[in-house]
Amino acid sequence: MSRHPVEIQIEIADKAIIAEDFDLLMSIYTDDAILVIEPGRNAVGKTAIRKAVEAIAVYFKNGLQVEQNGLEILYSGDTALVLANTVVSGPGFPATERKATYVFNKSPSGIWLCSIDNSYGHEVIGKYA
Amino acid sequence: MSRHPVEIQIEIADKAIIAEDFDLLMSIYTDDAILVIEPGRNAVGKTAIRKAVEAIAVYFKNGLQVEQNGLEILYSGDTALVLANTVVSGPGFPATERKATYVFNKSPSGIWLCSIDNSYGHEVIGKYA
Repeated sequence: MSRHPVEIQIEIADKAIIAEDFDLLMSIYTDDAILVIEPGRNAVGKTAIRKAVEAIAVYFKNGLQVEQNGLEILYSGDTALVLANTVVSGPGFPATERKATYVFNKSPSGIWLCSIDNSYGHEVIGKYA
Repeated sequence: MSRHPVEIQIEIADKAIIAEDFDLLMSIYTDDAILVIEPGRNAVGKTAIRKAVEAIAVYFKNGLQVEQNGLEILYSGDTALVLANTVVSGPGFPATERKATYVFNKSPSGIWLCSIDNSYGHEVIGKYA
């Protein structure tokens, strides 16, 4: 079965996170993307997202590992919803599986970009005052 | 706090499901929307979705009840991701909470419409052969 372009983008993003290649990582996001840093706290826009992922890298002692333990993509036109079992680990951080949700939009030039990055899934409910 | 238009659309959809007002319910979906009927089985497009929701109504003995036990909306431009604890019940069907995920897109006329309706959340992973 051929792989969906969104799946390839997620693979690139995961490798970029591990390699701390933030230029590459940022190329996966839309300009006005939203990233859930932790339930109740979001970063909006590329500048804020870059700052957040750089801080997250340091928090994980520059050893953040991320992999997908199964994912499914539902798409409709130029919108795709990703349901993923995302496993996060690092030095001193035992592997934790998150029920992640990502939304991708197909740009006018045909590239799928992440507009909503919520690795915490339903953990966000009720966390925004 | 003022309510987001997407939240109002979900409330209308829930009421339409309970009232079996399928014309109203269909007005909430985009033309090429996708509905997860059950993990592994989708309905794509309004005609297929209408057929599916009519069959679901009969399956629930015309007594399907649906309510949201907490939800959060993350949005980016004209795209919104809804994380919801959706409670489904009916005659002979004890209340079951699903970790639902819905994607809405803002139409050119400014109306938010549901493009991806996955009330099963991560249960879909690995269910498509």
